[in-house]
Amino acid sequence: MRIVVDAMGSDQFPQPDVAGAVLAARDYGVEIILVGDEAKVAPALAAHHPGSLPISIIHAPELLMMEDKGEALVRKARHKDAKNSMAVGLDLVKDNQAEAFVTAGNTGAGMTTALFRLGRIKGIERPALAPALPTRAGHCVVLDIGANPDCKPEFLLQFAIMGAIYAERVRRIQNPRVGLLSNGEEAGKGNALVREAYPLLASASLNFIGNVEGKEVFAGEADVVVTDGFTGNIFLKSSEAVAKMLTELIREKITHGSLPVKLGGALVRPALRSLRKILDPSEEGAAPLLGVNGLVFIGHGRSDAVAIKNAVRVAKQAVEAHVLDSIRDEIARRLTKPLPVGE
Amino acid sequence: MRIVVDAMGSDQFPQPDVAGAVLAARDYGVEIILVGDEAKVAPALAAHHPGSLPISIIHAPELLMMEDKGEALVRKARHKDAKNSMAVGLDLVKDNQAEAFVTAGNTGAGMTTALFRLGRIKGIERPALAPALPTRAGHCVVLDIGANPDCKPEFLLQFAIMGAIYAERVRRIQNPRVGLLSNGEEAGKGNALVREAYPLLASASLNFIGNVEGKEVFAGEADVVVTDGFTGNIFLKSSEAVAKMLTELIREKITHGSLPVKLGGALVRPALRSLRKILDPSEEGAAPLLGVNGLVFIGHGRSDAVAIKNAVRVAKQAVEAHVLDSIRDEIARRLTKPLPVGE
Repeated sequence: MRIVVDAMGSDQFPQPDVAGAVLAARDYGVEIILVGDEAKVAPALAAHHPGSLPISIIHAPELLMMEDKGEALVRKARHKDAKNSMAVGLDLVKDNQAEAFVTAGNTGAGMTTALFRLGRIKGIERPALAPALPTRAGHCVVLDIGANPDCKPEFLLQFAIMGAIYAERVRRIQNPRVGLLSNGEEAGKGNALVREAYPLLASASLNFIGNVEGKEVFAGEADVVVTDGFTGNIFLKSSEAVAKMLTELIREKITHGSLPVKLGGALVRPALRSLRKILDPSEEGAAPLLGVNGLVFIGHGRSDAVAIKNAVRVAKQAVEAHVLDSIRDEIARRLTKPLPVGE
Repeated sequence: MRIVVDAMGSDQFPQPDVAGAVLAARDYGVEIILVGDEAKVAPALAAHHPGSLPISIIHAPELLMMEDKGEALVRKARHKDAKNSMAVGLDLVKDNQAEAFVTAGNTGAGMTTALFRLGRIKGIERPALAPALPTRAGHCVVLDIGANPDCKPEFLLQFAIMGAIYAERVRRIQNPRVGLLSNGEEAGKGNALVREAYPLLASASLNFIGNVEGKEVFAGEADVVVTDGFTGNIFLKSSEAVAKMLTELIREKITHGSLPVKLGGALVRPALRSLRKILDPSEEGAAPLLGVNGLVFIGHGRSDAVAIKNAVRVAKQAVEAHVLDSIRDEIARRLTKPLPVGE
């Protein structure tokens, strides 16, 4: 198995990206192709003394810049001779030179480049970014969280199908419970999009548990949560922001507390540290972009080596689980034999 | 000043509602009118030995039920002879027998009954529920969080104007910073609604700080956050759910920890308790329903006496600050002299 790692992805590139690739090659026995500016990547790799580890470098001299968005980004994403690390890396997947692409680069750039380089799976109108959100019971796949700020009800149905397959195949959850993120649990709650998507999901042979709110999601009552990319993004980021605020406030309370409070803080620190691990996005590494014709994982810009390594692990699991073929087959099956809607 | 308290509002009515009213009459010197079933409310009040406190009861024999939603709710909200506590209480405000109405009853019922009993302020198309969300720096007024799942850009402009007046007048924030909740900070980010609302807010003589995400909101960078009722509801409820999950996980870690961790937990408990106060919705008591022709405050169903008392305090502040007249005047001013849009 060969997995491409974008060596120019993270905010601190290429060090964390290369270090994570080395860890992944060592721990998971997968072959890694690093794509990026060889003049920067080769020394970063050499510093790790990779020895006989199966890591190669493919030169991608161009750099995507912050200015590369909108039309400019689309031009680079489409151009067949584009030589930035995302375009080169995704072409390797397209040309069957590798099984998956992992990047900690700009999310918008990754999604756009993947869409134009790989195309969409037949029957999927919009790819969706599908991270795993920590809950009391483990994790929950939330999609979409950013690729599509404006959605049609049919998109949400496609997200639900892809999310359920991913949860079942990669996260090994049998018959995953699919919820629709809404402003109330009762059927009939929601904005126009949710109210129209509800009957589509209810009649789609999914384990659909209806509308869910934040409290059900964090209580672990859903394995897959479906939402438009705007709402999903706000849901995810505000949850992260609250968790960050709380952990910081606790730290401050303890640091600036009386001597007994400080002592108590030192005693509870190990317990709180294990909590931090639950909330740490680097544990999951990266989120799959589901619906494109290839396996693509996009991580945080602030990914460290461990996050990159974990992203490769998740990508490897997705390859082994044949998640792409499963989505293709399932969508094709539903397209040829559509289920009656509204039953 | 007379404030109406719905004695049949909270989940545990009438005890918390009546107890809170007694506390408010005692501490704030306001006259309280309790509305509800006299057979239940009178004994609950007598149990507090109110003595010469300025508390009266107005009989409202009917009870709104969980089944009263949709068409059935609208019928009861409109019917001039409706005798449930919300209809009777809101009519007192409408007839200038009282200055504000406070309820811990069902949010949907409160909003609908207020809309039909009091009507809208001229120039406001949709009233908005505007709670104060705790942040690192204090609080931030978020609106709408539930009254309007589907919004037009103009509604968001009206929310912004009302929210800014409320923040300035009641929360005493000079020149409040108004943010638009979005999936990215840059102008141009957002779903179609946000992208269309942005220029309206930018040209509306508000202290508009542009798009905000969860991290800016919880860092205290905005005093007012404007959003549609669907997104706002998910934003608020998911934030509460994360905070609840985290505090529970910390408690469990400590309770099931080793002896030193347990000891440490006992030592840090006072510090964590002060944190809980920040997150406690009963501190704020209730959220104003802005845009109706009268002051209406709607609290959590699980409000206790302290939450009811605090809701009366906030209502009193709003009366003293003439927030209703301010909104009426400001909207009238803008209607007669509309600002050019898109500048």
